[in-house]
Amino acid sequence: MTFSSVKSLLAGLPPEGSEINVQGWVRTKRESKAGIAFIALHDGSCFDPIQLVVPQELPNFEQEVTKITSGCSISATGTLVASQGKGQTYEIQVTKIEVIGWVDNPDTYPMQPKRHTVEFLREVAHLRPRTNLIGAVTRVRNCVSQAVHRYFNENGYCWIHTPIITASDCEGAGEMFRVSSLDLANLPRTASGDIDYSQDFFGKESFLTVSGQLNLEAYCLAMSKVYTFGPTFRAENSNTSRHLAEFWMIEPEIAFADIDDLINLAEDLLKYIFRCVLTECADDMAFFAQRVEKTAITRLEHIINHDFARLDYTDAIDILQKSGKQFEHPVSWGIDLQTEHERFLSEEHIGRPVAVVNYPKDIKAFYMRMNDDQKTVAAMDILAPGIGEIIGGSQREERLNVLDHRLAEMELDKEDYSWYRDLRRYGTVPHAGFGLGLERLVSYITGVANVRDVIPFPRTRRNADF
Amino acid sequence: MTFSSVKSLLAGLPPEGSEINVQGWVRTKRESKAGIAFIALHDGSCFDPIQLVVPQELPNFEQEVTKITSGCSISATGTLVASQGKGQTYEIQVTKIEVIGWVDNPDTYPMQPKRHTVEFLREVAHLRPRTNLIGAVTRVRNCVSQAVHRYFNENGYCWIHTPIITASDCEGAGEMFRVSSLDLANLPRTASGDIDYSQDFFGKESFLTVSGQLNLEAYCLAMSKVYTFGPTFRAENSNTSRHLAEFWMIEPEIAFADIDDLINLAEDLLKYIFRCVLTECADDMAFFAQRVEKTAITRLEHIINHDFARLDYTDAIDILQKSGKQFEHPVSWGIDLQTEHERFLSEEHIGRPVAVVNYPKDIKAFYMRMNDDQKTVAAMDILAPGIGEIIGGSQREERLNVLDHRLAEMELDKEDYSWYRDLRRYGTVPHAGFGLGLERLVSYITGVANVRDVIPFPRTRRNADF
Repeated sequence: MTFSSVKSLLAGLPPEGSEINVQGWVRTKRESKAGIAFIALHDGSCFDPIQLVVPQELPNFEQEVTKITSGCSISATGTLVASQGKGQTYEIQVTKIEVIGWVDNPDTYPMQPKRHTVEFLREVAHLRPRTNLIGAVTRVRNCVSQAVHRYFNENGYCWIHTPIITASDCEGAGEMFRVSSLDLANLPRTASGDIDYSQDFFGKESFLTVSGQLNLEAYCLAMSKVYTFGPTFRAENSNTSRHLAEFWMIEPEIAFADIDDLINLAEDLLKYIFRCVLTECADDMAFFAQRVEKTAITRLEHIINHDFARLDYTDAIDILQKSGKQFEHPVSWGIDLQTEHERFLSEEHIGRPVAVVNYPKDIKAFYMRMNDDQKTVAAMDILAPGIGEIIGGSQREERLNVLDHRLAEMELDKEDYSWYRDLRRYGTVPHAGFGLGLERLVSYITGVANVRDVIPFPRTRRNADF
Repeated sequence: MTFSSVKSLLAGLPPEGSEINVQGWVRTKRESKAGIAFIALHDGSCFDPIQLVVPQELPNFEQEVTKITSGCSISATGTLVASQGKGQTYEIQVTKIEVIGWVDNPDTYPMQPKRHTVEFLREVAHLRPRTNLIGAVTRVRNCVSQAVHRYFNENGYCWIHTPIITASDCEGAGEMFRVSSLDLANLPRTASGDIDYSQDFFGKESFLTVSGQLNLEAYCLAMSKVYTFGPTFRAENSNTSRHLAEFWMIEPEIAFADIDDLINLAEDLLKYIFRCVLTECADDMAFFAQRVEKTAITRLEHIINHDFARLDYTDAIDILQKSGKQFEHPVSWGIDLQTEHERFLSEEHIGRPVAVVNYPKDIKAFYMRMNDDQKTVAAMDILAPGIGEIIGGSQREERLNVLDHRLAEMELDKEDYSWYRDLRRYGTVPHAGFGLGLERLVSYITGVANVRDVIPFPRTRRNADF
């Protein structure tokens, strides 16, 4: 391949005057009265297309160029020149143009060069990356994902591929998808008539993971600094703009660390990601700020430039109660904070991201570390203006006797957690970790409100199309 | 956290003479006749532990230091000094030592400081990263994975998160796992008595993906250069050292590209990864060369330093037939190459990696591009000495009429592929892609023969433990 990307051409590489070849898809075409065709050509490498200036004199002008429509794929050869028009740095004086792929029935091609609703675009998810909106989302999502790996790698973390299929049911099987190779029309039965899962692929009931955390802890207690970044699953019926049945989650876990170390990590990671996006996707972010969410850029800059606040859950409840605000969900000590509470705290009360710490034990998971007050656990949520909770995590209970007490209190069977308990029996250490959902993060960064529009092929209730 | 990693200390950071704190797990401990304790402390950051020199004078020496065993977690403060012993650059003269976590019943702690069989280690998969072998595998696997993302990011590719759950059954449902939220004990039935999948979570039968390729092609035809790197699944009963039910796959897809471009990409990517591993994991690779596979380093160097060969399938058959070798699987035009054939070609006949191209259409998938001979398709496999096939890919059939002909020939329903066919109706372009299995790659690099030992928690027939 000796062709150039649109991104490099718009950056003046190779230099002006070079003979170049470019290949991509036609976004728009217009013809001047003088008979010159102007084609905006896109190849996905950056937000802007490059303009091809196609003179009438080309041998295939009448036969082909006049018939080119949006969506056609073409190869164009010519000279890179400074653009005389506005809005672009360089354009191409075309000396040869070839249509690689035509568009069947241009009038019915779904990706007409106009604004489409996001609902319509979901119906053509295989074609929507060809739009400005989804193209920009795709590049930002990639930028965020690359930044995550780069951040952890540069800081000495090991990426651990925790399992997707799990036979343990640690956070409640009600929300989990079953994985099976049984023939449902001919289920094997035990003597007593129950389904005989011993004949299923894994020899027992198995499910899709809801979190890699427990497995990750095992590696944390050997490698010290680890993370996982992979798909996770919830069989929830929630039909909201914030829920997907399949989504990607980033989960770091650090040894010899407490909840303060964890908050520092969350702050550092988020700021690193935001800086990468603003630097590497400046063109896409300008589009989001112009067309989707006015504050898309400024709110990231604001976060980068301010320290995260810290607030005890008990103080947060006090602030909410004294706020004089009417909340839909009433506030009292012991409740789980709702998005309206979270947004009030970070947007109105504090005006920047805040880490709320030390939540009541009764609303949190068994593995979170018990505080000395015996009422709260060392959990933390990062709340950000404009979204509410963006990160949730905790210090883990590293003391075997306290963990066992919590398991018993929550009526969980010790035997089901024997390997997890081993981690507390053999060289246990204070450790902590959090979860950051990729889709909510990309939704927040871009201002694209529905998480279905920031993942290539969304899986939700009644929808696994494509 | 103000402690130093073992990796940085062994590299002399901070400089000799600094007061430092280090935290990790005891690998071994011995006491000299003079009453000094020597502790090898490990924290997962690199292959080697650092030596702690603990003088008898410490107040907790008798009470605690003498009782420290393998696996205990400790925090040690002291001075970084040049080591007088052999085998290490620096060691720590300890002034304060604290035991963070003891080992319950040291005599029965499974991770004794001795050589364990890989079979035993699989039974304690939650503790095995504490061993030299699995620790080194973990760092190499991380290095390979990071190198993959870095390579694609630096070369202008977008990482696309293709879906894990799929309702399409493109390569044969026989090998796929079902995903369901139905209550198997109370399956809903249609009027005719069949299972009513319309009541399942996604409103139809759904499965775990076997490849992200088809979805990836949709993004390729908008973004030009894309890849996916995620888990894939096979419900195969194969109980071999090369098969997992859940494994990670790297799949790039490039537009405006033919099979030669694809082979160039495969060669460039593999060499990049191997260079990263040799540079960044030199200590781990030295261990593998010493203990696991003598040629672990030299065979990677050999690949880096030689061009990949190219060979037509038809010529490969000819070479095999004329080789005079007795193969277990007889050779004739039309067969799929077996590992014995692949290894003969790359190891004995050519002596370096070779791309075999243009396989018979009848042994390949419907989406591979038909060659002009109408008998072969533009498929390619990269075969490497010591392993055989390591990459498999193809140019994709971009011509709608030829694709439709192939679908009909293979008795596949056009309607099931309507969105995939759209990609050929709207601005189709020549494009190509391949799949590279992460576990086989890490197995090849490290010499660790069984893929179950190069993934944190392997999933195989009758095994989804941990």
